[in-house]
Amino acid sequence: MKVITIALGGNALGKTPAEQQENIAIAVPSLVDLITQGHKIILTHGNGPQVGMIYKSFEYGAANSDKIAAIDLQECTAMSQGYIGYHLQQGIMKELRHLGMPWNVSTLVSQVEVDPKDPSFKNPSKPIGDFYTQKEALTMMREKPEQIFKEDAGRGWRRVVASPKPIYIVEQKSILNLLDHKFIVITCGGGGIPVIKDENNNYHGVSAVIDKDFTAAMLADIVEAHYLFILTAVDHVYLHFGTKKQKELKEISAKQARKYIKAGHFAEGSMLPKVEAALRFVESAPGRRAVITSLEKAHLAMGDDVGTVIYS
Amino acid sequence: MKVITIALGGNALGKTPAEQQENIAIAVPSLVDLITQGHKIILTHGNGPQVGMIYKSFEYGAANSDKIAAIDLQECTAMSQGYIGYHLQQGIMKELRHLGMPWNVSTLVSQVEVDPKDPSFKNPSKPIGDFYTQKEALTMMREKPEQIFKEDAGRGWRRVVASPKPIYIVEQKSILNLLDHKFIVITCGGGGIPVIKDENNNYHGVSAVIDKDFTAAMLADIVEAHYLFILTAVDHVYLHFGTKKQKELKEISAKQARKYIKAGHFAEGSMLPKVEAALRFVESAPGRRAVITSLEKAHLAMGDDVGTVIYS
Repeated sequence: MKVITIALGGNALGKTPAEQQENIAIAVPSLVDLITQGHKIILTHGNGPQVGMIYKSFEYGAANSDKIAAIDLQECTAMSQGYIGYHLQQGIMKELRHLGMPWNVSTLVSQVEVDPKDPSFKNPSKPIGDFYTQKEALTMMREKPEQIFKEDAGRGWRRVVASPKPIYIVEQKSILNLLDHKFIVITCGGGGIPVIKDENNNYHGVSAVIDKDFTAAMLADIVEAHYLFILTAVDHVYLHFGTKKQKELKEISAKQARKYIKAGHFAEGSMLPKVEAALRFVESAPGRRAVITSLEKAHLAMGDDVGTVIYS
Repeated sequence: MKVITIALGGNALGKTPAEQQENIAIAVPSLVDLITQGHKIILTHGNGPQVGMIYKSFEYGAANSDKIAAIDLQECTAMSQGYIGYHLQQGIMKELRHLGMPWNVSTLVSQVEVDPKDPSFKNPSKPIGDFYTQKEALTMMREKPEQIFKEDAGRGWRRVVASPKPIYIVEQKSILNLLDHKFIVITCGGGGIPVIKDENNNYHGVSAVIDKDFTAAMLADIVEAHYLFILTAVDHVYLHFGTKKQKELKEISAKQARKYIKAGHFAEGSMLPKVEAALRFVESAPGRRAVITSLEKAHLAMGDDVGTVIYS
């Protein structure tokens, strides 16, 4: 029996409730098959398109109705955890019952602590929400000085937020407790609701997007996982991705991975954070392995003939 | 040590994130004081204003952007569980740490099964979302025949959904597991995400609003609570409410409560479901008591000199 932490990409979940349910229905047999094989799984997921849709809806809501307040990113992330967790737990439960398996599934709303001194707060770069004119953006920055807007490649002005690294999963005891009692736990959605600690050790939400792959690596460490699966749209990590020289990677050491990172093989904001999160996990304790592959192939990845395996 | 299930009214939580955090900060000392007194608490909450705000924002989002889909009520309820649970768990944790108490707090995303034959599905009456013209409403009913719009007291047309009774809490094992291990659990928000079972025993979301007071009574039964606290805007249940003859009720038997219901003392959609839910709970096992009082006075209610106590 191995413990496997699985990170699902937010993009793979689609842009509407119907798409999300369809994509989950496609992914679920592969995930539950890992349990059939005798392993224990714990799930986390991205929320890029989903939190964007929630944030933007509230922008429209607040602009059109004086009864609706704009909602900041930490609350939108909390909403996305409910929204995605609900569909995931319903979809997984369906497959479990179909196979007569007694496991239960739970989604935990989860806060993740970040460091207010994280360098990303000085240079927020993650765009969120709608495009605005320069005039609108300047007005909004005057009204809410904590919000920063930047010009986005000629397409207009857009709000940008920090993308800090996770340092602590606030609800980790709940996660471990459920995991110890035969529950499949869905947690830390979207990288977690970002919170910072004040001088009295109280947590406060902060407007940011935590890198979900790093949160997944931290979660995998906390639950003492043997494997971290990072599931995305491609079957492998590639060298020279998208060129004629493209070459898939099957099994690489942390050292090799570092060499490829230096050579610039992996795109920022896409494959790079996944490989970096994989490295962080495999180097956190001996014997740990990370697999980067597609959602549909997850169940084959324990055979080591699928996906890109990274070991320390 | 008594087990107390606490139902917080959604209206009491306010209409914006800032209001919600302020109201929670006011309520939390009273709730945590019950733990200091040696009791075990489990929380549920309404979501009327919050789910309305989410649903409407997506109406505006979908109307203004072809990248945003309208989101139906079950998904909006899931979002509201994340949104309210996040603030509640953060606020309660703050008070616990302030007092040096080792308890943890968790929000579980929860589905609640309803009966597709519930009579409320034949006559949906709970208004949600924005007002529309007759023409707009008729068009929408043609496009989505499962959605019903009704004329609302001369103010325009509005979508109406069913308000069925809960019959099963899908995630009850997760709730009990956490409760057994010194966790304060926040669950079944907004009465739960309404789901129905199909012929293959699979759950599907359904567009409805479950009566949260009845879900609270069911939750209290499942966790074998001694007390059900229904916390609202008033300190007591009243006879002749809002008239010169208004009289507060201190302690009443289930039999007396039934007599007052028959005499029409309690308003539908307001105090009536609370008294009915209290009755359901106190009559489900011997020795159980329900207390209806205000959020701020919850901690005094164990002294029996505050609120309206209902016993069987």
